[in-house]
Amino acid sequence: MLKNYCLVLCYDGTRYRGWQKQGNTNDTIQGKLETLLSRLLEQPVSVHGAGRTDAGVHALAQAASFRADTELTCQELIEKIRSYLPEDIGAVSLREADERFHARLSAKRKVYTYRIWNSTDPCVFERKYRYVHPGTLDLNKMRRAAGTLIGKHDFAAFSTGKSKGKPTVRTLYSLEIEKHGNEILLKYTGDGFLYNMVRILTGTLIEIGEGNRDPESVIRLLNGGKREDAGYTAPACGLFLTEVCF
Amino acid sequence: MLKNYCLVLCYDGTRYRGWQKQGNTNDTIQGKLETLLSRLLEQPVSVHGAGRTDAGVHALAQAASFRADTELTCQELIEKIRSYLPEDIGAVSLREADERFHARLSAKRKVYTYRIWNSTDPCVFERKYRYVHPGTLDLNKMRRAAGTLIGKHDFAAFSTGKSKGKPTVRTLYSLEIEKHGNEILLKYTGDGFLYNMVRILTGTLIEIGEGNRDPESVIRLLNGGKREDAGYTAPACGLFLTEVCF
Repeated sequence: MLKNYCLVLCYDGTRYRGWQKQGNTNDTIQGKLETLLSRLLEQPVSVHGAGRTDAGVHALAQAASFRADTELTCQELIEKIRSYLPEDIGAVSLREADERFHARLSAKRKVYTYRIWNSTDPCVFERKYRYVHPGTLDLNKMRRAAGTLIGKHDFAAFSTGKSKGKPTVRTLYSLEIEKHGNEILLKYTGDGFLYNMVRILTGTLIEIGEGNRDPESVIRLLNGGKREDAGYTAPACGLFLTEVCF
Repeated sequence: MLKNYCLVLCYDGTRYRGWQKQGNTNDTIQGKLETLLSRLLEQPVSVHGAGRTDAGVHALAQAASFRADTELTCQELIEKIRSYLPEDIGAVSLREADERFHARLSAKRKVYTYRIWNSTDPCVFERKYRYVHPGTLDLNKMRRAAGTLIGKHDFAAFSTGKSKGKPTVRTLYSLEIEKHGNEILLKYTGDGFLYNMVRILTGTLIEIGEGNRDPESVIRLLNGGKREDAGYTAPACGLFLTEVCF
């Protein structure tokens, strides 16, 4: 009998082309997982992820669902999965889920965290997991713009081509900007995010923090603005999918 | 006029053959620094490090001294050094030092920290900076053996060939074993360490923690024991030079 599973994963996205599989290549997280689970369970397994992270984006807690027919307990299965995963992907937890559970469709909200190393001090050990940006950033201006972004809006100006023709309205529940030592964290909680949305929002907020863009400019961007009017796409290495709530 | 400098460095030792230069190769930290400083300052520069870290060993605060004739201020010089360093080596600080200062000869004590990831939970983002060892370790037994190791002893049994013929007596001032969540830290403070000494001490303590070796066996090892009677050499990736005191 087919059972439905929820697998929570963490990964270092550096060497992957993102979550979503592309053809038969083995350089996406989804592709790697489907190959691994299909071999391990000796049956074709399809995996659905809650968030389609871009190339180079990391995850602390990506949720994925899949169906499989197996006698293994969850503990036995996660141990097997762990023994086959490459060192840059980790299995955090595995549980049996309700038969209607689907990691993407059942997700109520997702949290993405963008990490900026805001110092000329060296960032050697976490260099693959931070965007190094030493210049001064005015957090008050950034927070003012963040306040405007919260809510249900058309975020079309903050996404790139791949979302074309699809609905571009999303709800951003919160956007917290924190500074801890040399690090600035931007924590985005929303019901869903368009392609590149968190990275373009971050690039736009950085330009505001640098004084190169007016905090009020985001109002225009939310009201029929175009991609080219928004800020740059902040690098993938600073971005983490940190939580999925069901 | 030649000025004497103290440069504090951090580095990810993964891709290096250790601190000490070997011939003309550019795959040691010392070799890389000497090449960089000699080019930058347009004069031959010799660099002395406080601790000769092995291949693959990391540093949070290695101290290095060098002499150079330059009009640059320390702030200007460290900025130039930073702009030329590869991303896996960082310049933490630079100061002018007393003319007799020598990073190795003036060092009074050094602190090395060995980091063990003691869990089956994934260790994805810090996998290059931890020794993953999920089995149960009896910290009380390890601490009992650690207590025996503290003091002035002949550590010959805890070193490999390269130290042959040289004095093997060292003073270990303290050896603290701490557990924080999934991580076990072994913090060694001493006046100096033989080649591979921290890693062999760690391997020996791990065997004691596993119950595969008697805590009292270290007494025999300190009294004329041989290398082959001690434990294995714990992997380089878990080891950090964390502090040098002058």
